[in-house]
Amino acid sequence: MITGKNYLGNTLSARGSKTYKTFNPQLNKENEIEFFEATNQEIDDAVALAKQAIKVYKNISGKKKAKFLNAIADEILALDDTLINIYCIESGLPEGRAKGERGRTIFQLQTFAELVEEGSWVEATIDYAQPNREPLPKPDIRKMNIPLGTVVVFGASNFPLAYSTAGGDTAAALAAGCPVIVKSHPMHAGTGELVASAIIKAAKKTGMPNGVFSNLNSSGIDVGVQLVKHPDVKAVGFTGSITGGRALFDLASQREEPIPVFAEMGSINPVVILPEALKENSEQLAKTYASSITLGTGQFCTNPGLIIGVKGKGLDKFIENLANEIIKIEPSCMLHPNIIGAYENNKAKALAQSDIKVVADIEVDLKSNHARQTITTVEGKRFLENKTLHQEVFGPFSMVVQCDNYKQLEDIINNLEGQLTGTFIASENEAKTHISIIEALQNRVGRLIYNGVPTGVEVCESMVHGGPYPASTDSRFTAVGVNSIKRWVRPFSYQNWPNTLLPDELKDENPLGICRKEI
Amino acid sequence: MITGKNYLGNTLSARGSKTYKTFNPQLNKENEIEFFEATNQEIDDAVALAKQAIKVYKNISGKKKAKFLNAIADEILALDDTLINIYCIESGLPEGRAKGERGRTIFQLQTFAELVEEGSWVEATIDYAQPNREPLPKPDIRKMNIPLGTVVVFGASNFPLAYSTAGGDTAAALAAGCPVIVKSHPMHAGTGELVASAIIKAAKKTGMPNGVFSNLNSSGIDVGVQLVKHPDVKAVGFTGSITGGRALFDLASQREEPIPVFAEMGSINPVVILPEALKENSEQLAKTYASSITLGTGQFCTNPGLIIGVKGKGLDKFIENLANEIIKIEPSCMLHPNIIGAYENNKAKALAQSDIKVVADIEVDLKSNHARQTITTVEGKRFLENKTLHQEVFGPFSMVVQCDNYKQLEDIINNLEGQLTGTFIASENEAKTHISIIEALQNRVGRLIYNGVPTGVEVCESMVHGGPYPASTDSRFTAVGVNSIKRWVRPFSYQNWPNTLLPDELKDENPLGICRKEI
Repeated sequence: MITGKNYLGNTLSARGSKTYKTFNPQLNKENEIEFFEATNQEIDDAVALAKQAIKVYKNISGKKKAKFLNAIADEILALDDTLINIYCIESGLPEGRAKGERGRTIFQLQTFAELVEEGSWVEATIDYAQPNREPLPKPDIRKMNIPLGTVVVFGASNFPLAYSTAGGDTAAALAAGCPVIVKSHPMHAGTGELVASAIIKAAKKTGMPNGVFSNLNSSGIDVGVQLVKHPDVKAVGFTGSITGGRALFDLASQREEPIPVFAEMGSINPVVILPEALKENSEQLAKTYASSITLGTGQFCTNPGLIIGVKGKGLDKFIENLANEIIKIEPSCMLHPNIIGAYENNKAKALAQSDIKVVADIEVDLKSNHARQTITTVEGKRFLENKTLHQEVFGPFSMVVQCDNYKQLEDIINNLEGQLTGTFIASENEAKTHISIIEALQNRVGRLIYNGVPTGVEVCESMVHGGPYPASTDSRFTAVGVNSIKRWVRPFSYQNWPNTLLPDELKDENPLGICRKEI
Repeated sequence: MITGKNYLGNTLSARGSKTYKTFNPQLNKENEIEFFEATNQEIDDAVALAKQAIKVYKNISGKKKAKFLNAIADEILALDDTLINIYCIESGLPEGRAKGERGRTIFQLQTFAELVEEGSWVEATIDYAQPNREPLPKPDIRKMNIPLGTVVVFGASNFPLAYSTAGGDTAAALAAGCPVIVKSHPMHAGTGELVASAIIKAAKKTGMPNGVFSNLNSSGIDVGVQLVKHPDVKAVGFTGSITGGRALFDLASQREEPIPVFAEMGSINPVVILPEALKENSEQLAKTYASSITLGTGQFCTNPGLIIGVKGKGLDKFIENLANEIIKIEPSCMLHPNIIGAYENNKAKALAQSDIKVVADIEVDLKSNHARQTITTVEGKRFLENKTLHQEVFGPFSMVVQCDNYKQLEDIINNLEGQLTGTFIASENEAKTHISIIEALQNRVGRLIYNGVPTGVEVCESMVHGGPYPASTDSRFTAVGVNSIKRWVRPFSYQNWPNTLLPDELKDENPLGICRKEI
């Protein structure tokens, strides 16, 4: 049952008077449940509980943390249709997507459980003493990763499960040994509360300390601001807009003690498409891209918002094919009236620029909050000159840039902001000929894709989801995959420490049997 | 020969009119050579050269980078006494220290050479495709570390060689594949130019691109500010004061594209000293600490500026022993009149606080710029109340805090700012009894030392030199040891990339024979 309350550790709390409701975009009306915005005191209480919890939680074994993470996965599954239903009525997304995203969320939790159960992720390194070294003896020094402290996670609007309450950031932080406080996304507060209840149940069942997890409701920015400024919060995870992520980054950087913010933000995910590839595959490529651009109503951070080619018959034909294909696709619902409002505004802003041509726009009457997918074209020279065209239009929108030549194409890439992904569509022969274009693209992105689409972020060890600013605030980390745990840990050294007092990971006898580097 | 000019890549340049000289603190007079402060245009030229250089340098093989790094080491050694002499007259430090620090600098360069020659440091990971996976095929994804871009390194006042021109930050950044621009420290501009000349010679001999390294003179803050704000600079390394490091961090965070700053800053390196340890070893401990506090005239970032014990005869006796030992040590010269001026000011500020007692202060007439080593004591309650006493007094100064009980001792640790190191001096029995004190200490530091001294930072794989703010601006990285390379790289993914176009590190056939994780 959804109560509308906050979880301060294991306790439901609704001390405030400010309430809000979520919205069903398919029915175009508010949902019924009232959510109680967290008060200043409730925020402080959640942080204080987390501060207590970490004293126990940071020393809990990997095996026990694995049980906790697996139990969260089980409890989420146990929510069954109750969770799927609220997910759908709060997001307007279809049931298939809800179940798929739940599967991904479960998989992430289980993957981190495996990681910490196995234990080698702490990167234990041992430099044995060399008492007879000249001119000075070498001490015994041993190193491993330890948790940073309390992590605040901001739920993402576009991933009510996989990048929200028990999503990637939370799973990684809990795996690292950090208590987590979630600032619930106001668009799916009910989904958030249900998942929070699953986490709390799992924490109780597996004997985790009270305060290891809290979930705070918030309809505006105040709760998030107070959390990021709180001296006992040590790191922040965020997925969302550049404006939002940058605001949090600035707050965190201006603290007396600055803390790391990993914000995964906007991206237009440039796709370079070269003539030979178009000769062979124009129709299939158009189909694939029409589908990628409209996937999830264009509400993925890896949505291909920019396609760059060299002028010619091949590109003309591709544009025609893409336009034909995209209008065949049934328009779908966006997450919230605010999201579709922003989509329409940003699109209008782009279309108001000179020399933008709309080549595909559906003319049907749309159901409420359904988005009109749109393909536009622009000359390379105009795109280079006008930074407004470089801005993300979050939704089923893409712009094809028609370059005069390869030099202009490369200039355009060099003038893009940082991106999550770059896609290179070309024959192998073209790829070998245009190394400098590939290198320019590599310089601006976190992941390069060859002859594919950027949507579909595989959760695996080799994935980098992040990239040069503003794709993320720190390109040295990924937000997806087990290596995302590194955002929430710091290396720590013990020098000449007694064996019995060392953590198991560093003891002489290696009781956990983990991989270690011994020197 | 020292010219006083800047190195813009391979070219000596002195277009400006502002000049300055270095200072010999032992003789208390200026040295003769005039140094030309870099102009705005020279700064821009150095950055532009680096931007060109990276196109080549980022793809240079580990073997070639190793040759470059080893050649730098050789060229530094070839400078022989010329370098040692200028080092001494610009720092006031003795020849033995100069040679020791040169040895460390060489060792660091050679260690990074070994690392990149071997090649596994890129953390190559391969997720092979699973074309038949259900419900969706898994793509081939491969990941490795790639360089961030141009790195600006600020030379440190207290390490003219090991943390300056060709010091740890530079060696790590060059090893990572990043061009480096050094903002030379004004106190040892001559040492800096000589080492820069060695780097340039090595770069030419080993065929590195022009612009892979530049060295800019600067007597104030302007050159550094312009470098950190430059859009083509991608990361910053700094060792120095909290004020300086924080100013750079703020500048970098406020850029349109924020960039990472790794600043290793102040630390008072708390030492907890418990009664049983004092019973057995009071005199030896006092000798060891008198020596550690005065090592390098107290100008090490790991200098033990704070000793915390519990009141009693044992602590009283230790204080007496420490006072007796420290006054036996011959006072030595600080780096510069500004440094000793700051030492005297900061010490006076500490001594002006109520209830501070001086228990050791030498009364002899001092030679110019020589520092008066000082030991003070204060009650635990007063220390807790007065944050001024928590501030670093950079120099041969330490304060012994006399706590009423263990609870107060733990409170004091919990109220300290972040530190590079924490030292725990106790019997094993005491260590087992006071786990909560150890955990409090761990929470505030980057390295814990048992029954030793914090000075003497071993350059090895397991070393963490860094810690919670303000020990460093990002506790997730170390400034010492081969892992410090991670400050200057980002992970990068290739998806379904043709084998022939992959970097060697990720090719199917593993031509470099490096360790990879294959899934």
